[in-house]
Amino acid sequence: MTEDDFLGRLRTFPLHPGAQGLRDDTAIIGGHVVTTDTLVEGVHFLPTDAPEDVAWKLVATNLSDLAAKGAVPAGILLNYPLGDDAFDAGFLRGLAEALATFDTPLLGGDTVTLPCAAPRILTVTAFGTDAAAPPRSGARAGDALWVTGTIGDAGAGLAIALGADGPAALLAAYRRPQPRLAEGRIIAPRARAMMDVSDGLLLDAQRMAAASGLAVTIDLARVPLSHAYRAHAGDALAAATAGDDYELLFAAPADGDFPATRIGGFAPGAGLTLTRGDVAVPLPASLGYAHAR
Amino acid sequence: MTEDDFLGRLRTFPLHPGAQGLRDDTAIIGGHVVTTDTLVEGVHFLPTDAPEDVAWKLVATNLSDLAAKGAVPAGILLNYPLGDDAFDAGFLRGLAEALATFDTPLLGGDTVTLPCAAPRILTVTAFGTDAAAPPRSGARAGDALWVTGTIGDAGAGLAIALGADGPAALLAAYRRPQPRLAEGRIIAPRARAMMDVSDGLLLDAQRMAAASGLAVTIDLARVPLSHAYRAHAGDALAAATAGDDYELLFAAPADGDFPATRIGGFAPGAGLTLTRGDVAVPLPASLGYAHAR
Repeated sequence: MTEDDFLGRLRTFPLHPGAQGLRDDTAIIGGHVVTTDTLVEGVHFLPTDAPEDVAWKLVATNLSDLAAKGAVPAGILLNYPLGDDAFDAGFLRGLAEALATFDTPLLGGDTVTLPCAAPRILTVTAFGTDAAAPPRSGARAGDALWVTGTIGDAGAGLAIALGADGPAALLAAYRRPQPRLAEGRIIAPRARAMMDVSDGLLLDAQRMAAASGLAVTIDLARVPLSHAYRAHAGDALAAATAGDDYELLFAAPADGDFPATRIGGFAPGAGLTLTRGDVAVPLPASLGYAHAR
Repeated sequence: MTEDDFLGRLRTFPLHPGAQGLRDDTAIIGGHVVTTDTLVEGVHFLPTDAPEDVAWKLVATNLSDLAAKGAVPAGILLNYPLGDDAFDAGFLRGLAEALATFDTPLLGGDTVTLPCAAPRILTVTAFGTDAAAPPRSGARAGDALWVTGTIGDAGAGLAIALGADGPAALLAAYRRPQPRLAEGRIIAPRARAMMDVSDGLLLDAQRMAAASGLAVTIDLARVPLSHAYRAHAGDALAAATAGDDYELLFAAPADGDFPATRIGGFAPGAGLTLTRGDVAVPLPASLGYAHAR
């Protein structure tokens, strides 16, 4: 069953009012935004990734969803599969570093043991307070599309982690994603729609447009690329379809003053249109990373 | 690393005030009790278990932790690994049935895909409201030890699920555990300490005594056994060391009027003492199921 099929079935269940129709990355309960993300060894991280980096990524991906709501992290729950001592100790080091960096306390969790040779599956559930909580679905026709930071670094970093040559800055973007918590606090109160870019800029922009009942256009010439990415790879289309960016993607007026780059806009209609400046660009076969079977 | 080692390290981290020192099965945030439990195929359920029963057990084990706080379920988050269509569809049926039975709405979650042939790992995080929330650590010397329902049925049911002969009632106790939500609402406001029995009566009673800084004595002759269990197996010691009971274990005055059975008591000191009536019984080598490497 695909993720969309599964979610479609779940939407027929009785839903908590804070579930927001299961159409957002976060829910709301007890005055907190809450989000949960699971990372799977061999899918979301490499068996060769250092346990310190796995812990960091597990925390960062969850806090990125809080950042997209403009929330202040309040605590996390950890579901952890106990393994060998070296991995566990490294994981604890990375967890301590991530929680200290993002000033986030531990709230609780669960540990389990796995059958021999099973891939690690780790879950964090993160709580945030004081969120402006712009929905994914709030974009209006005429809004500009904005994105923080630079795009594509982590995707290029993954290729480096898999053995390609490349600069340390891109590898670091893959290994140590930075949730945009400070930017989220500034942007969220004035954003009409916001989400983090986790599965690819094009795919996530298309999702925001669909949730908002609008069409979206992205100008590849405006997609922000780092100096390291330009020197190493340089292809904006590859950057815009790679995953793991954890930047904030939002809809807001075009004349706003945001710590972000304006890359496109929303209009009545449906679907995603790509340009490079004024020239139309055909959509690639894959817009990003989608969970399939 | 053992669970105790891992938890010991986590207790040195900055903790949320609601984490209660990571010494309880639940935490408190935003006026809700929250608990999270992960089930692993081949560890907490059998690869041959029906997906409907896996879904039920995943919900029931989490709601059992809410029951031990006297809470009313408010919602759950689900972390689900998409698999084959037949399993997914069966899981959704069981999930719908469990959530309807326990009047619990869906709040959100995450889906992932697994590498080929990886065992399923599923997590639910459950929220409850209006909890009296007796801690695990609140027993006082002189309190009696009480337990709801009957003990050992699910352990015998597991043997039946693995191929042994036996009555359907015991198999059902393994497949469809019943969280004691109604009993928890009645008991929690008058219990000094409470937890659910998930890893074995003796092990969990010893944990409550240790958390309370007391010694505990259990009279095996008083451990409540079902008619089906008596007829099929009958051994109170085997019942008291089997897992998956999901009954409520609590400390309260001996003259209280509870929907439960008085099976022992707390005294100054430390450790677990077993009797059968007035006769001392040596402790078995294993008190229950403990997560090891």
